[in-house]
Amino acid sequence: MKFTINRNDPLPLYLQIKNEIEMLILSEEYPNGFILLSERKLADILGVNRSTTIKSYDLLKDMGLIESKVGKGTYVIYEKNIANNENIFNEIYWDNYLGNYSFKNSINIMSKIMSEVSKENLISLSGGFPSKEVYPYDKLKQINIEILENNEIFFQTPVRGDRAFVLTLIKYLYSNKHIKLNHKELMVTSGSQQALNLLIQTFVNPGDNIIIENPSFFGAIHLFRKAKANLISTNISGEGIDLNHIEFQLKNNNIKFMYLLPNFQNPTGYNMSIEDRKKILYLSKKYKVPIIEEDPYGELYFDKYTPSIKSLDTENFVVHIGTFSKTLSPGFRIGYIAADKTVIKKLTLLNQFIDIHANTISQNIINKFLSKDFYNEHLEIVRSHYKLKRDAMVNELNKGQLTFQIPKGGYYIWCQLDKRISVDLLLKESLKNGVDFIPGEFFFNNSYEGRNFIRLNFTSSTKKEIIKGVRIINDIIKNMR
Amino acid sequence: MKFTINRNDPLPLYLQIKNEIEMLILSEEYPNGFILLSERKLADILGVNRSTTIKSYDLLKDMGLIESKVGKGTYVIYEKNIANNENIFNEIYWDNYLGNYSFKNSINIMSKIMSEVSKENLISLSGGFPSKEVYPYDKLKQINIEILENNEIFFQTPVRGDRAFVLTLIKYLYSNKHIKLNHKELMVTSGSQQALNLLIQTFVNPGDNIIIENPSFFGAIHLFRKAKANLISTNISGEGIDLNHIEFQLKNNNIKFMYLLPNFQNPTGYNMSIEDRKKILYLSKKYKVPIIEEDPYGELYFDKYTPSIKSLDTENFVVHIGTFSKTLSPGFRIGYIAADKTVIKKLTLLNQFIDIHANTISQNIINKFLSKDFYNEHLEIVRSHYKLKRDAMVNELNKGQLTFQIPKGGYYIWCQLDKRISVDLLLKESLKNGVDFIPGEFFFNNSYEGRNFIRLNFTSSTKKEIIKGVRIINDIIKNMR
Repeated sequence: MKFTINRNDPLPLYLQIKNEIEMLILSEEYPNGFILLSERKLADILGVNRSTTIKSYDLLKDMGLIESKVGKGTYVIYEKNIANNENIFNEIYWDNYLGNYSFKNSINIMSKIMSEVSKENLISLSGGFPSKEVYPYDKLKQINIEILENNEIFFQTPVRGDRAFVLTLIKYLYSNKHIKLNHKELMVTSGSQQALNLLIQTFVNPGDNIIIENPSFFGAIHLFRKAKANLISTNISGEGIDLNHIEFQLKNNNIKFMYLLPNFQNPTGYNMSIEDRKKILYLSKKYKVPIIEEDPYGELYFDKYTPSIKSLDTENFVVHIGTFSKTLSPGFRIGYIAADKTVIKKLTLLNQFIDIHANTISQNIINKFLSKDFYNEHLEIVRSHYKLKRDAMVNELNKGQLTFQIPKGGYYIWCQLDKRISVDLLLKESLKNGVDFIPGEFFFNNSYEGRNFIRLNFTSSTKKEIIKGVRIINDIIKNMR
Repeated sequence: MKFTINRNDPLPLYLQIKNEIEMLILSEEYPNGFILLSERKLADILGVNRSTTIKSYDLLKDMGLIESKVGKGTYVIYEKNIANNENIFNEIYWDNYLGNYSFKNSINIMSKIMSEVSKENLISLSGGFPSKEVYPYDKLKQINIEILENNEIFFQTPVRGDRAFVLTLIKYLYSNKHIKLNHKELMVTSGSQQALNLLIQTFVNPGDNIIIENPSFFGAIHLFRKAKANLISTNISGEGIDLNHIEFQLKNNNIKFMYLLPNFQNPTGYNMSIEDRKKILYLSKKYKVPIIEEDPYGELYFDKYTPSIKSLDTENFVVHIGTFSKTLSPGFRIGYIAADKTVIKKLTLLNQFIDIHANTISQNIINKFLSKDFYNEHLEIVRSHYKLKRDAMVNELNKGQLTFQIPKGGYYIWCQLDKRISVDLLLKESLKNGVDFIPGEFFFNNSYEGRNFIRLNFTSSTKKEIIKGVRIINDIIKNMR
């Protein structure tokens, strides 16, 4: 049996056992006909009295979920679809009902990462998750208890966010990111993915031209595609973003937005220079093409902070999207948008019908975490922690044959492979050996361009795992040539 | 000054005062040039030493946010837009960038409700919020402390929901709603609005015909409109839903979905009979047109429980959307979809790029609340509490001239007015007298049909407020005739 019991739980053991089995039956993990362990055997395995398991089984029998027969033992008699042979109508093929904008099963990437990352024995270099080693558990737990003083944490907030939290965010954006905002220029969202979704749903029409970095964040690529936008890819490389290509596009095409991730970009780790930020803002104003600046990683610098484009923008040409998912944790689902008040107003209107407002408890927790200045303390800790991990990864990568640039912050190292090596085969072999990563193809509008790249994350695994994981990848590549 | 200080807060008073003023300045609630109270006057008002306020003001001066001049006093010198006269580019009209699918400012209804409801001195009969009088604060706080044992509450969950919570929901749906599900047939969402959004974005194409009750929930009407669906309204009245009209439509038009709220419908309070539920499910199967069944209110019956259509459906023609927002609180932002596994798979794919997953802490809290069976205890309490409030509202309404049917559960009483009375004028007068409600027009696809209706909520205000509020409305109507 897959479950464990908890002797500290006030619930009696026989009820705990009954509940666990009941759920396994109802969810059909134990399907109809499934033979259960005998009461005696289960009692032995769990280290409880036989009378306990007998009590549990008796309750399940009373509920009509299991029965026992001499010679056969105890087995499940629950069947979900009792009416399978009832009449002529009973078939529906849901695939026939899908809309034109639904996604193909092949892009199951984020789901896969989110469930795989927690698998035991897997060294995951794929996800974009923070480290659990230097997490401020004690401070967050303390705050979680403090906020219970306020009964309002259980109820709704305004669509645009809890009023006190909005004010705290304005103060934080001024002190941490040098972004000056009026209180009508900010909105709290359920993470930055939700923020980008609101923005695209409000502003982007099918066929709109969007300038996007090449490669870029796949969550953005897929949302723009869903809106049937036309993506115009601008290459970024070690030398920076191709500003000449951008100006050519702005001059010759009708461009709706530029979508940029200037700080320690996902996937490349590339950090746009302050000069290029100023130039691109100048182009934005000259051609009246607004910039969507996504900034999940800007505060995770190892060297020095580069001002966000939004902080250089005094006329609201820039929409700035931020999140606490990378610096703190994605579990809170809290992000924000800083933009012109017309934009915020329209996004608020839409969000009434999308998810109404961000989670109240999370807003209250992060509000206190910022107000007490725990956030900046935490940033200092993770910056040096991630720098050590980056160094470990770089050091190990240097022993192999992948080429890469050393990122000065953020989460990722972007590696190029010899053209003769198949990324698919490399991933297959790596998984066999207990390591995963993300193939480059997911980050390009034209996936073929990513065929010789892989993205490695250096934040969520331990230093020891990182070294082991990279060593395994290096060895596989060595043997493939 | 608008703020209060907290002597129990470990933060020194001079820092509390400085922080409050700082936020008011950064958010421009105290604009550039705004004259602050003198240190002495502020100290008097707050009941602190003058040395405290002097310390606060000194810090704000160091930050360059305020300055003092003899004769003028102390005033704000912070200005957000320092570069207003910088160059020729500095204008952007964001309205020109809006997409074809963005909402008009006129539908600001939900936002308005969410911020107005908490206004002091307003008796709100408009919102759809639970009572704060019989709320299980102690149990939820206890659970909130218990979940802190598990560090994982701070991190991500799978896109489809926390695994343990999904199993608990399957068990709960079986015992409370008699819905049998396989574990692949359920997904956790950030509230039911988010669930409906995922569904519509995945399945509905522009021009698709959708059968919808008339009147219906405005959150659904607006989402279908945003997807450019064609809404076909079927009247509901005291006698029930017009099944002949539905069958006529199913036979003669290409219908994509039926969207129904069979339990204590919003706004009418109407409860579909078990016979009609069976008939409509029969029609769904006969014409292979799936049903979207939204069920926020089903457990809030005052008389007896009516099985949901989903519980009668053994072949997955029904997509069932549920939420804890009405029975517990909207602040948790937790809902779910129960449907065919193909549907769940597609919604999971989409949600990777929408809000990724529902809040982790909320999922853990509600998981424990259900597992400990606190939820059913709570339901019993609110059912009798809301029944008393409904009775109070009915009793008071009987003294006036509005016509209505008595709902047997849920949140609302739907009232019809004499045709000569203007709802706009009634609302204006009511607001002047400190009472609000929602005009009927918001609940009709053709808003004109709602011109003689208003929706009154009987759950969130106290019994005393309800009686006073209805009395005020009755009096206004009396004087209008």
